[in-house]
Amino acid sequence: MRVLVPFDADSPKSRLAPVFDATERRDFAGAMLRDVLEAVAGAGHDPEVLATDAVDVAVPVTIDDRPLTAAVNAALEESTGDVAVLVADLPLATPAAVSRLIDPEAPVVLAPGLGGGTNGLVVRTPAFRVDFHGASIRDHRERARAAGIEPATVDSFRLAVDVDEPDDLAEVLLHGSGHAAEWLADAGVSLDVSEGRVGTSRDTTE
Amino acid sequence: MRVLVPFDADSPKSRLAPVFDATERRDFAGAMLRDVLEAVAGAGHDPEVLATDAVDVAVPVTIDDRPLTAAVNAALEESTGDVAVLVADLPLATPAAVSRLIDPEAPVVLAPGLGGGTNGLVVRTPAFRVDFHGASIRDHRERARAAGIEPATVDSFRLAVDVDEPDDLAEVLLHGSGHAAEWLADAGVSLDVSEGRVGTSRDTTE
Repeated sequence: MRVLVPFDADSPKSRLAPVFDATERRDFAGAMLRDVLEAVAGAGHDPEVLATDAVDVAVPVTIDDRPLTAAVNAALEESTGDVAVLVADLPLATPAAVSRLIDPEAPVVLAPGLGGGTNGLVVRTPAFRVDFHGASIRDHRERARAAGIEPATVDSFRLAVDVDEPDDLAEVLLHGSGHAAEWLADAGVSLDVSEGRVGTSRDTTE
Repeated sequence: MRVLVPFDADSPKSRLAPVFDATERRDFAGAMLRDVLEAVAGAGHDPEVLATDAVDVAVPVTIDDRPLTAAVNAALEESTGDVAVLVADLPLATPAAVSRLIDPEAPVVLAPGLGGGTNGLVVRTPAFRVDFHGASIRDHRERARAAGIEPATVDSFRLAVDVDEPDDLAEVLLHGSGHAAEWLADAGVSLDVSEGRVGTSRDTTE
């Protein structure tokens, strides 16, 4: 299946500013993007990047500088067949997790993200369009039902963990094994195990 | 399968103190516990509560006031057959998610929680004991491998979301449909959709 991976090529991952500078954020976002593209390809599907600007990857790139929702809906509008969308900041994505999103035969399949987001979806009907603002998982469920479709939902931790905030980095170190996990280790980020949930700290002395 | 659900009957959910008083925290913890017990029973298994003190539920309760790790290991020690453990603060747990934990035939199956925890595990070997301190999912993987066992991991958002902190309440409102979601709605907690991840706010005017 055609799998669109939207990517903010201009100022990605701004909420990681407390820990990484702008160049680092761009590098790290690129590492996560590569993890997602490899997971999609590993599941036997065809990833394409839908980017706000040029990006150096080994798959087709469409440049569309409109906001995320408009760009994805334009791509859905143009597409003649089924389309999947997977966000670019899923460094825990694996081929198995991607297959669990794409295998169900439902007209609309949703992968919830932490905090109400929608990290992945499959659209097999012209009756559905996306809206990534706010509690988008709730809105996407309601939009599907308004179109007479009961959406399927994939129950995946690996697809739910999008990396937006410093606290999310711990998940990458705990469960990741790809480019993003390697990038973090190279950047001196390590687990900080004290009370409650595990965090991270960064050694910048080298 | 025998499924132990450890429960802190004394001062549960202390990290929710910014939003709920002690009585409310106990009520809410009880609602989450009931959601977990019903998910386990719905999957065709036999839940038992392992509590620090008496608790009013319709399943067998063993009282053991030792810390979590010691109490669970004592129960594993005494058990003659396979045992599963599921933490009590998983209000998104469903019978399907419980089945995904218990169905794999591996000697050790792990369900990661957010922030490095272990929210569920299945133990089919006498060679494995638990340790819930710190980044327990990492430690449990290492313990299994040290015993010559490659642990299976269940990739489940519903089992990963344990409710410890106020931010976690949004997940219950977005994805829950059981006692805990109902309790939150009755307590005046609603989604707060602004920027970034969705949070919650509480109306206490009534």
